[in-house]
Amino acid sequence: MELYEKTITETIIHKGNFMTYINVDVELPDGKIGNRDIIKHPGACAIIPFIDNQTVILVKQFRKALEKNILEIPAGKLEKGEDPKLCAIRELEEETGYRAENVTFLGTIATAPGFCDELIHLYKATGLFQGEKSLDEDEFTEVKIFTIEEIKSMIKNGEIIDTKTISSLMYL
Amino acid sequence: MELYEKTITETIIHKGNFMTYINVDVELPDGKIGNRDIIKHPGACAIIPFIDNQTVILVKQFRKALEKNILEIPAGKLEKGEDPKLCAIRELEEETGYRAENVTFLGTIATAPGFCDELIHLYKATGLFQGEKSLDEDEFTEVKIFTIEEIKSMIKNGEIIDTKTISSLMYL
Repeated sequence: MELYEKTITETIIHKGNFMTYINVDVELPDGKIGNRDIIKHPGACAIIPFIDNQTVILVKQFRKALEKNILEIPAGKLEKGEDPKLCAIRELEEETGYRAENVTFLGTIATAPGFCDELIHLYKATGLFQGEKSLDEDEFTEVKIFTIEEIKSMIKNGEIIDTKTISSLMYL
Repeated sequence: MELYEKTITETIIHKGNFMTYINVDVELPDGKIGNRDIIKHPGACAIIPFIDNQTVILVKQFRKALEKNILEIPAGKLEKGEDPKLCAIRELEEETGYRAENVTFLGTIATAPGFCDELIHLYKATGLFQGEKSLDEDEFTEVKIFTIEEIKSMIKNGEIIDTKTISSLMYL
């Protein structure tokens, strides 16, 4: 059976600060009608910055959706038309104050395919040197340093829960 | 600096099929006012089912948000008040037709902490035996079998992009 779901009608429910809630009537594979709620997201990039072979930078950030501080690799939303690699380089410097000699692509992940089109493009940075930290005016972060082994332990014991951070390790 | 963002006002923008779009005015750490769009999600569970030490089951599913078929570990939303482990066991049988002798907790991931409160509780299933496949009426999947090595290659070459599937491997 072909799994495709054809759009019948698409309704914009709400345009928010950066994401749009839409509702779609679809023709299901068996010919019946289904209904899907979907969040349209501009996409994002994230970058795992290596200080040396075994040591990386994470940022601690309060996430209102979760009502808690969590540790993540530096990341941010794509600006309109922005090249993902340039976005990763920009976010690295804004959030950590570092620039990098080498930035390589790791892979692209879909964070919530059941209801959202967000793709995050993952990069690795090496050869770090001092740049200038310059957070958005509504952004507050703390830079933290960990070894890869510490991060793996923190994933297993539940101290790190951010899926882009966890996923990034699979590409190394 | 304390990174906390205190809620000033919270507005429900839209209640959808299963998620709710809210908008929150917050007091930022520097005392200024910020605004956050947030998707409230019921949470979900996912389960990586092992046929033997090296072989697992994935499901292929059309994801309307991405307009494509993707490969994922079996997963589904938590029903109201549902125990996550029972949710994982239920989704395993519904989506693959298998039951499991052993189901163990791996960890919990936050899929999109920048804008969504979704947590996915990850489990591992071993000792599979035949149950009964029974998809939701708007759900269509194909069961696929891969070795862990094949899955790691498919992650690196971009054939697998689902972040819960990628993340689940970090707990094994």
